[in-house]
Amino acid sequence: MTYTVFGESHGPAIGVVVSGLPSGVLLDIDAIGAEMARRAPGKDRTSTARKEPDVPEILSGVFEGKTTGTPLAAIIRNTDTRSGDYSKLKDLPRPGHGDYAGFVRYAGYNDYRGGGHFSGRLTAPLVFAGAVAKQILAERGITVSSRISMLGGVKDPTDRQVDDIILAARDDGDSVGGCIACAVSGMPAGFGAPDLGENAEGIFAKHLFAVPAVKGVAFGAGFGFASMRGSEANDPFYMDGGAVKTRTNHAGGINGGITNGMPVTFEIVIRPTPSIAQEQQTVSLSRGTDETLVITGRHDPCIVKRAMPVIEAAAALATMELIGI
Amino acid sequence: MTYTVFGESHGPAIGVVVSGLPSGVLLDIDAIGAEMARRAPGKDRTSTARKEPDVPEILSGVFEGKTTGTPLAAIIRNTDTRSGDYSKLKDLPRPGHGDYAGFVRYAGYNDYRGGGHFSGRLTAPLVFAGAVAKQILAERGITVSSRISMLGGVKDPTDRQVDDIILAARDDGDSVGGCIACAVSGMPAGFGAPDLGENAEGIFAKHLFAVPAVKGVAFGAGFGFASMRGSEANDPFYMDGGAVKTRTNHAGGINGGITNGMPVTFEIVIRPTPSIAQEQQTVSLSRGTDETLVITGRHDPCIVKRAMPVIEAAAALATMELIGI
Amino acid sequence: MTYTVFGESHGPAIGVVVSGLPSGVLLDIDAIGAEMARRAPGKDRTSTARKEPDVPEILSGVFEGKTTGTPLAAIIRNTDTRSGDYSKLKDLPRPGHGDYAGFVRYAGYNDYRGGGHFSGRLTAPLVFAGAVAKQILAERGITVSSRISMLGGVKDPTDRQVDDIILAARDDGDSVGGCIACAVSGMPAGFGAPDLGENAEGIFAKHLFAVPAVKGVAFGAGFGFASMRGSEANDPFYMDGGAVKTRTNHAGGINGGITNGMPVTFEIVIRPTPSIAQEQQTVSLSRGTDETLVITGRHDPCIVKRAMPVIEAAAALATMELIGI
Amino acid sequence: MTYTVFGESHGPAIGVVVSGLPSGVLLDIDAIGAEMARRAPGKDRTSTARKEPDVPEILSGVFEGKTTGTPLAAIIRNTDTRSGDYSKLKDLPRPGHGDYAGFVRYAGYNDYRGGGHFSGRLTAPLVFAGAVAKQILAERGITVSSRISMLGGVKDPTDRQVDDIILAARDDGDSVGGCIACAVSGMPAGFGAPDLGENAEGIFAKHLFAVPAVKGVAFGAGFGFASMRGSEANDPFYMDGGAVKTRTNHAGGINGGITNGMPVTFEIVIRPTPSIAQEQQTVSLSRGTDETLVITGRHDPCIVKRAMPVIEAAAALATMELIGI
Repeated sequence: MTYTVFGESHGPAIGVVVSGLPSGVLLDIDAIGAEMARRAPGKDRTSTARKEPDVPEILSGVFEGKTTGTPLAAIIRNTDTRSGDYSKLKDLPRPGHGDYAGFVRYAGYNDYRGGGHFSGRLTAPLVFAGAVAKQILAERGITVSSRISMLGGVKDPTDRQVDDIILAARDDGDSVGGCIACAVSGMPAGFGAPDLGENAEGIFAKHLFAVPAVKGVAFGAGFGFASMRGSEANDPFYMDGGAVKTRTNHAGGINGGITNGMPVTFEIVIRPTPSIAQEQQTVSLSRGTDETLVITGRHDPCIVKRAMPVIEAAAALATMELIGI
Repeated sequence: MTYTVFGESHGPAIGVVVSGLPSGVLLDIDAIGAEMARRAPGKDRTSTARKEPDVPEILSGVFEGKTTGTPLAAIIRNTDTRSGDYSKLKDLPRPGHGDYAGFVRYAGYNDYRGGGHFSGRLTAPLVFAGAVAKQILAERGITVSSRISMLGGVKDPTDRQVDDIILAARDDGDSVGGCIACAVSGMPAGFGAPDLGENAEGIFAKHLFAVPAVKGVAFGAGFGFASMRGSEANDPFYMDGGAVKTRTNHAGGINGGITNGMPVTFEIVIRPTPSIAQEQQTVSLSRGTDETLVITGRHDPCIVKRAMPVIEAAAALATMELIGI
Repeated sequence: MTYTVFGESHGPAIGVVVSGLPSGVLLDIDAIGAEMARRAPGKDRTSTARKEPDVPEILSGVFEGKTTGTPLAAIIRNTDTRSGDYSKLKDLPRPGHGDYAGFVRYAGYNDYRGGGHFSGRLTAPLVFAGAVAKQILAERGITVSSRISMLGGVKDPTDRQVDDIILAARDDGDSVGGCIACAVSGMPAGFGAPDLGENAEGIFAKHLFAVPAVKGVAFGAGFGFASMRGSEANDPFYMDGGAVKTRTNHAGGINGGITNGMPVTFEIVIRPTPSIAQEQQTVSLSRGTDETLVITGRHDPCIVKRAMPVIEAAAALATMELIGI
Repeated sequence: MTYTVFGESHGPAIGVVVSGLPSGVLLDIDAIGAEMARRAPGKDRTSTARKEPDVPEILSGVFEGKTTGTPLAAIIRNTDTRSGDYSKLKDLPRPGHGDYAGFVRYAGYNDYRGGGHFSGRLTAPLVFAGAVAKQILAERGITVSSRISMLGGVKDPTDRQVDDIILAARDDGDSVGGCIACAVSGMPAGFGAPDLGENAEGIFAKHLFAVPAVKGVAFGAGFGFASMRGSEANDPFYMDGGAVKTRTNHAGGINGGITNGMPVTFEIVIRPTPSIAQEQQTVSLSRGTDETLVITGRHDPCIVKRAMPVIEAAAALATMELIGI
């Protein structure tokens, strides 16, 4: 299983092609729509006011409602785009965004409008692909779930705290970052290898770092291992009705790069949205001078809530690749 | 550039094949030896008493002292192996090790002696490959360095603290984990892409998670982003003698999956060594019963010090892949 | 550079996503259209009467007429589809087609209408991608051309012979196969390697065998080498105005898996179109009985003419991958 | 399954690393030796007088005689090397060899002695890997066989003809090329896909073109398709005791890039050995002048006989990759 996400924020359409899917899986279009809706903006004041209908059109790979096993392509037309908002940004890279790195990488030819190919909007087709993956995994008893494990410095925030933190940042013309904890339950033991490109952590990380704004990935106890001793970190084995299990799961379900049958658990960190209302320092790429910049337009003060289905999608796709479905 | 590490701890030899190297690079064998020595155990009481001469024999890919551009293979013969120490572990997987996951993955046929292919000893050929990569990168002005950023819960420990923490764990028959901060300086802007398998963070993570015991990878401010606001997290651009730079480097030199010309900085966490002297709970794989286990033999109470050249090697190899040398 | 072709003959659309293109290449849409037209059916009595407008819609990867360097996606809507023609074929695999192999591969869930994902129609997006590749190569002085080198047993046929051979087969309710000779001129020396997955012949072959109906690929003197001696087969070197050239090019521009600066030349063979009007023997997949089958509908008596731009497209894409543009 | 062959003809050793093997396969070392012996030179006057003991030393991936599932590495020490024979060739590329292309590719730093990494000697570790693959395939009922289908222009030569043709060329200070027909029997239906990088023909071709001197690969009727009509080329289906089979196998066991359950059959062409005793035209790479060259040393007048186990090895490894063992 592999996929390619394509499109630019203000181009004709965005989409995804997923190769290597199993055939014969009946797709639940409503469930896919529900996942898309979790990611969609404009639901309340904690996200951008932009409306994105996000209705994917499946072009291939599905016949009579079931996957064919051939490449599955789906596109989402771009509609609510206001290119005028972005034209002045062509010369003034926005701090924290991929504008400058992309300018160098693509020699100035990338579509700068709305972040172009770097736009968080590209996560919509990723969620679509992940929703398909989730259904395939569910048939095998594997489920993916997530929660906000930190937001704006508050650990394990309540829903109320989440909204308060986001709205406070919004009122300051600012944004906040956070962490998402994710679990893949029902993962069978014995997938992965210690080797480069094959180890389970590396495969998950490959998919997770392909999600914009993810800056860290840690499994099980994660960075907490640096404050632990081996006697605490080691997960004791025991027999549970004929199955080998561990009493704790500090390893996050992976030892030696291979799944051990416990849930794969990991935490990722998402940087604060770079688009903030405050004045920022930048440079003019054409003149080579220091400049200031105020970003206008509609932006999320925090994308952590909306990122949950995206992280789950990446985890589901990573699981597909790992177990070779 | 890609590489394959092969070998088992108690087999005839371990080694590595590196493909895709540039030709014509004069190898500094002494410098390679120095990197190997940084990783080698047995130097003082903070590491295992095992002696590993770790003298690699280059079999191919080097002619008249220079790389040929064809696959470079090097092997290290295994000598100081005491297989008797491990025979009883065949049935009793060690908590925190890959024994059980590997038993499932390889259907019980993997070499269990000394951890087999999971052994930390396999990092010796990785350091060799990394030492070669470092020399190739140095010709292009790119250097890799690292430091211990946390150990046993102490942030930015002094050398003295490092030794104290390790020896205290050793005296308790225990082990400790820690973090390593690494920087790749001189990295040019414009390498990577936002896309799956091509983004800079993902490529680094792939190489870093292939190092045994690494359980987390985070770039720039890393998990600290979850306690930051955008106004603090965004790195302001400025002109520095004709070059675009950022005043801070919270992004760790990567925006939108592409290098931005600042040093690539990241932190990794290494779990406490799973081999500890204390009695642990395990199971009998043949009988399906709960058991206890005491691991004997010579083991590191902490591998963080020895892991520094390994992490640098993985970072150097990742950089080679990323910039397509 | 890599690409994924997606779609089914009777699905909503077919298309292609091309990753890894260089940025800043101004696309000549008319030239792309001309390539598409070379492949399009319905031009005269030597091809199927089906009309395929084949107007690709570019969805991403192009901005202000130039490539952005991000994934380029294009789709072609399916319009002139008559699904009724094919429904009875669901149970009766057509000899020479991928129906039966696909039935096993996809467990019966693939779209069987019009050949589904196996349809020659899928070569339309391939020609689109190849047309883009050709323009990128042309900027570097590399051109791709082809000719029919054999048809229905006639070597190097004239245009008149080509039409006569095809129409004769058509009149017999039959079809014919043939060979296409292709040359990539302006190919620089030094690309490729002897190694698996990197050798020039292997990269070309990978792309060429992905074209439906191609059953053989041979470079330079090809299968003629089996009737040659070394003294005849070896291409003598000589200096030509400071450049190393060979007086003959039996090697097809490749030695040791690496380009040698001479044109890359190869020949491919295309099997006769499997869809013929004559009664054929097949089986019922549901009943497990021997059956006879008469294929109705509109089919090409020969696809060799239309395959020329497809083979050139595959060669152009292979060249892109080989030289790492 | 993938592999990397490493080494140079006159370096310390040549070898191979095979990744992705199944675990628990008991290796028959004698059978491996027999395959190596089939390839080894020096058996009679039809091959070079060089002696190559070709005894591989397994370094990893085998434990208690069985594969472990971790990377399997084996090396063969180089012993009978006479570097003096080759020193003058550094500046004068041999026609038909990879010398010049390699000189450009590796900027003059590759090991030119005895062909270096281009040497046919590198096929020894390939045969080793193939012998392992054959044993794994045999457990699943899949066997690989080959025969000389053309030599020096003679179709389907007898053993006596083979020797006569080779010795006649040798007496003329010349060499001859030929074809090998290969069959993979017991191949199950349903492996492969129409898509780039996944189609069965492309996977076989990738492995076959990685064998030095192979210049063409064709499946089933191969280039004979160009002289056939569809009514002849199509393989009629019939039921054979509950199994779907075809009465002919012109498709070579592959339709639409997917195996159809019939034997996979293909033919490859091997160019005449480029090392001949006659004077040849070349150039001086340092002086840029036209030169003549007489190659001395011990060389094969024909490698087709010795190539049979090599082609079978490549076919076995391709099969492993294709069916995902």
